[in-house]
Amino acid sequence: MKYFVPLLANEPAADLQLASEIAENLFTTNNLWIMISTALVFIMHLGFAGVETGFGQAKNTVNILFKNTITPILGLLTYALVGFFLMYPGFETPGWFAFDLDGWKMFWFSPAEADVTAGYADGGYTYWTEFLFQGMFAATAATIVSGAIAERVKLSAYLVFTLFYVGLVYPLIGSWKWGGGALDELGFYDFAGSTLVHSVGGWGALAGVILVGPRIGKYVNGKTMDKPGASVPLAVIGVFLLWLGWFGFNGGSVLSADPGLVSLVLVNTSLGACAGGMGGFIAATFFFKRLDLGMMLNGILAGLVGVTAGADVFTPGSSLLIGFIAGLLVVFSSVFLDKMKLDDVVGAVSVHLTCGVWGTLAVGIFSTNPEHSFLSQLTGVAVCGAMAFSSAFLIFFILKKTRGIRVSEEHERTGLDSHEHGIRGYTIVYDE
Amino acid sequence: MKYFVPLLANEPAADLQLASEIAENLFTTNNLWIMISTALVFIMHLGFAGVETGFGQAKNTVNILFKNTITPILGLLTYALVGFFLMYPGFETPGWFAFDLDGWKMFWFSPAEADVTAGYADGGYTYWTEFLFQGMFAATAATIVSGAIAERVKLSAYLVFTLFYVGLVYPLIGSWKWGGGALDELGFYDFAGSTLVHSVGGWGALAGVILVGPRIGKYVNGKTMDKPGASVPLAVIGVFLLWLGWFGFNGGSVLSADPGLVSLVLVNTSLGACAGGMGGFIAATFFFKRLDLGMMLNGILAGLVGVTAGADVFTPGSSLLIGFIAGLLVVFSSVFLDKMKLDDVVGAVSVHLTCGVWGTLAVGIFSTNPEHSFLSQLTGVAVCGAMAFSSAFLIFFILKKTRGIRVSEEHERTGLDSHEHGIRGYTIVYDE
Amino acid sequence: MKYFVPLLANEPAADLQLASEIAENLFTTNNLWIMISTALVFIMHLGFAGVETGFGQAKNTVNILFKNTITPILGLLTYALVGFFLMYPGFETPGWFAFDLDGWKMFWFSPAEADVTAGYADGGYTYWTEFLFQGMFAATAATIVSGAIAERVKLSAYLVFTLFYVGLVYPLIGSWKWGGGALDELGFYDFAGSTLVHSVGGWGALAGVILVGPRIGKYVNGKTMDKPGASVPLAVIGVFLLWLGWFGFNGGSVLSADPGLVSLVLVNTSLGACAGGMGGFIAATFFFKRLDLGMMLNGILAGLVGVTAGADVFTPGSSLLIGFIAGLLVVFSSVFLDKMKLDDVVGAVSVHLTCGVWGTLAVGIFSTNPEHSFLSQLTGVAVCGAMAFSSAFLIFFILKKTRGIRVSEEHERTGLDSHEHGIRGYTIVYDE
Repeated sequence: MKYFVPLLANEPAADLQLASEIAENLFTTNNLWIMISTALVFIMHLGFAGVETGFGQAKNTVNILFKNTITPILGLLTYALVGFFLMYPGFETPGWFAFDLDGWKMFWFSPAEADVTAGYADGGYTYWTEFLFQGMFAATAATIVSGAIAERVKLSAYLVFTLFYVGLVYPLIGSWKWGGGALDELGFYDFAGSTLVHSVGGWGALAGVILVGPRIGKYVNGKTMDKPGASVPLAVIGVFLLWLGWFGFNGGSVLSADPGLVSLVLVNTSLGACAGGMGGFIAATFFFKRLDLGMMLNGILAGLVGVTAGADVFTPGSSLLIGFIAGLLVVFSSVFLDKMKLDDVVGAVSVHLTCGVWGTLAVGIFSTNPEHSFLSQLTGVAVCGAMAFSSAFLIFFILKKTRGIRVSEEHERTGLDSHEHGIRGYTIVYDE
Repeated sequence: MKYFVPLLANEPAADLQLASEIAENLFTTNNLWIMISTALVFIMHLGFAGVETGFGQAKNTVNILFKNTITPILGLLTYALVGFFLMYPGFETPGWFAFDLDGWKMFWFSPAEADVTAGYADGGYTYWTEFLFQGMFAATAATIVSGAIAERVKLSAYLVFTLFYVGLVYPLIGSWKWGGGALDELGFYDFAGSTLVHSVGGWGALAGVILVGPRIGKYVNGKTMDKPGASVPLAVIGVFLLWLGWFGFNGGSVLSADPGLVSLVLVNTSLGACAGGMGGFIAATFFFKRLDLGMMLNGILAGLVGVTAGADVFTPGSSLLIGFIAGLLVVFSSVFLDKMKLDDVVGAVSVHLTCGVWGTLAVGIFSTNPEHSFLSQLTGVAVCGAMAFSSAFLIFFILKKTRGIRVSEEHERTGLDSHEHGIRGYTIVYDE
Repeated sequence: MKYFVPLLANEPAADLQLASEIAENLFTTNNLWIMISTALVFIMHLGFAGVETGFGQAKNTVNILFKNTITPILGLLTYALVGFFLMYPGFETPGWFAFDLDGWKMFWFSPAEADVTAGYADGGYTYWTEFLFQGMFAATAATIVSGAIAERVKLSAYLVFTLFYVGLVYPLIGSWKWGGGALDELGFYDFAGSTLVHSVGGWGALAGVILVGPRIGKYVNGKTMDKPGASVPLAVIGVFLLWLGWFGFNGGSVLSADPGLVSLVLVNTSLGACAGGMGGFIAATFFFKRLDLGMMLNGILAGLVGVTAGADVFTPGSSLLIGFIAGLLVVFSSVFLDKMKLDDVVGAVSVHLTCGVWGTLAVGIFSTNPEHSFLSQLTGVAVCGAMAFSSAFLIFFILKKTRGIRVSEEHERTGLDSHEHGIRGYTIVYDE
């Protein structure tokens, strides 16, 4: 298989061939890193499953796992059927909507031709790698929503929402920046998706939480009641797997194996996570007067979301600061949402929306690239937020007015597992 | 360390040296990918442990985990002692049996020489990488058996079975194709082991299930009774880890980091998994009238097994179809096995045998390589199946007639953990 | 970004440029492997969390997880603030203490300059990769301590201990060998840290176990009582993740992607793990007359720790022997510690100290490098051990005499979770 040949004019043929082989080797290494990053982003779906199952109640475990298993499936399938071609349409002039119909035909009817375009991404990776890496991202947005509205949303409503949100809304918004659309033209910057992935998921979660309403017994006489999660170890497994996956989420977003840039991104990502965990821990100690593991875990995620918008243009020092503030914000945001009686099972809105916005704006403050401006960042946040929230609200609203989005009170009280799935999450019995 | 030097006749010495360094770089990258794939295949053993512990009953958790922990250990050790040299004997003429005695001596008594042969695999990977990658595969076959016959098989019988099956039967069958033996000569194709790994495990599982018999209380008055698994989250963790591991299982089977081919393989693998999950979900909704998470999970595995035989010669579109059919098949097969009163705790026969056969035959239908034929595929399936099933049956039969393969009724009823291991899988008590 | 250019005197300019690009490619591949190894070492922290939560009692699950979550956070943060510059100070003459103040200033105030030094490590990896890879190691030492003294140590005392031990003691001892200090000059060899990481953690654990005392009810009338762990599956998950992480821990310690050396290291690592598991299994069968999964698991870890000191200078055969002996040792050591009434919840002292010492000495016996000597190894073990144990003892002793290191009897009996964290590790209830 041949990739591009960098032209060195007037060189002997042997040198040209060597140069071509050198370029192919670099291409192979770059592509390898993006494939590995794809595997790492894939495992984030298990991470989300862990967090949501861990923080959710035991009577809804199977339901949560069902959602978290089918979400990446639907995500990849809709991305192959629609999303990929909507998100990277090859805008002729930067705009707001286009569809790569030729690409769609090639993918499904003459895939062998995709090899020819292998070198299209500046020598970074193949067509198939591009598809799979971006496809693994796509389902993330829906998973974020899933966590927020767990334990009372109708599974069928969630699935319909996911089809539209992951199949259409996410790739459309993504095309505005990563696909080279209007926001990219405007100078908006979002390295690995604080806005395009996390806040899009977070806005969807907010819309869902508003429309589906709080769980029965969550807010009683003005007080917020605890709903103990089934398994703290599962939540910890989830957060560590998410952190691991972020090595690929951010590291792979360099779109090459460039040693200096990728390693800086990984340092910023990890320091952001650590500082976020400390921020969550400290804020929770102040607010709740206990060593709150849940808030430390969400602080880690908050820090990760926070540095994601600019992990390649932050310094380690500013990553530390951004992550720490994200860790504080996630606690404030959670307390505020509970005050508003917005019941978010895993804190998805606080982690992904609040800190996604914060991280995106932080690029306008801390970026080492002088071309980035606070105003462009604010514009991107506002435009993407308006589209994401209104779309999600509309989808959930139509579903609510037609087939309903909430399970019956009886199902919610006795748990979704036995009703919809016929099994329980845990059967730890020793006597027959 | 020096690897092969590609000869460019009549070139200046400097160019030859550069060409040699370029080839070494490619070798380093290829080898890196196979080593990473090895790590990914390794983690599949944890995936199997999760699936089997999750679907098995809590009273047998420790017993299942004991088997799943010792299986990769025995697998690697027997592979180092026997299997590797039986599977890659360097047939002088393609045949059915040979043993690489020189390789065995080198491995154990002059391992430093192995470096000299580093470039032997067409520049793809070192001798040690080859050993470890293939060794990680080997134990898989036994693990598949373990899941099917769990909860009533005698641990000692399983261990003896594993020694023979992984140490001798698996590498012998593998040598017929991957070792360059008679089936390879015949034109049989099995990219990453739908037949050589999965159906070999599946045939062993079928033999075991027949001879060990169903669990007490599984089939009562013509009805199939549920035996609720201990932990659905563990099963989900297992399936996601298996999917992750398949990135290396299939991706590493390219035996180089070739960007176009590996990335196509990963796309086919993932689309197969997604379609399999949808197939299992849809068939189960039809059969069982519930949102059956277990069947969606087994559908994912079925899709993965299905595309494994030809992940490098399928298109994404055909991978989708093959995976979807595999997902349907796994449900039909499970229902059929229960009709036959063949009690398979985790559905291993349906996933690995039924879909392993289907995937292998699918190469004869969907392969983009015109040299592949349905007849060759059928022959390979039949020959490997005959050998695998009869060997497994024989081993279990001899064990049954001598020391027994089934625990006492009392041990089965009260659980294997307290009797054989002296501890319980879960001790979640809060009061002393 | 430009890295070093290997000089080929009198070559044409085109060849020089090609040679430079070839060197950059190799650099990119090497750096990629170390970054992936970093991710693998990171996941070891989840592995430790699994082992400790699995073997610990359910009433202390949240407390254990809190420690295991904050430990890598504190580890990375202190490494960025102090440790990294203490461990790799660039000794002018090999000595016992130095601090890289210029590096510290660059890291925090002019990080862009770090790119300039990218090629400093013999073409192996960037400055940021070096920091993150070594930083992931650093927290390990504290985690080892955490497992030993779980279930009765005061969280605040553990956190203060961790700050000093990971921030100062670990990097100081590390500087003596890996930083090019006095022990390196002496000829002491420790490839990936049997002594510098594992025994340093193990000595700290021993000091902690002595000073904090056994759990209430562990030793009653001269008998050792079982304290059943909460979840054997979690312990198995933990051990498999640790084994996976060791691919990066040992494989990455080659500090390049050198195909022959890295793949040999991975084979030795895996064979050591397998043999250790068999050793633990066999010794436990002899001692305890049961199929002891816990001892097989600790045997695996023991084998891994054992081969870590010389995984690049052992043969596969000697790795097998070293691992097997480590597996036996971990059982003897555990029995001995219980005889001494030294209560180590997860067997951390036996795994990391006993087998860390054994593996380091084994280099003096089995190394294929004739420059390695038993005496140098013994000296290194003694010097590092004296420093690690006395430091840890001093820190714990001061803490004990001031704010206390042990929770109240009531907290210990009823569990640390409800008192310090306000939640329980598992809430598996199906009725409201």
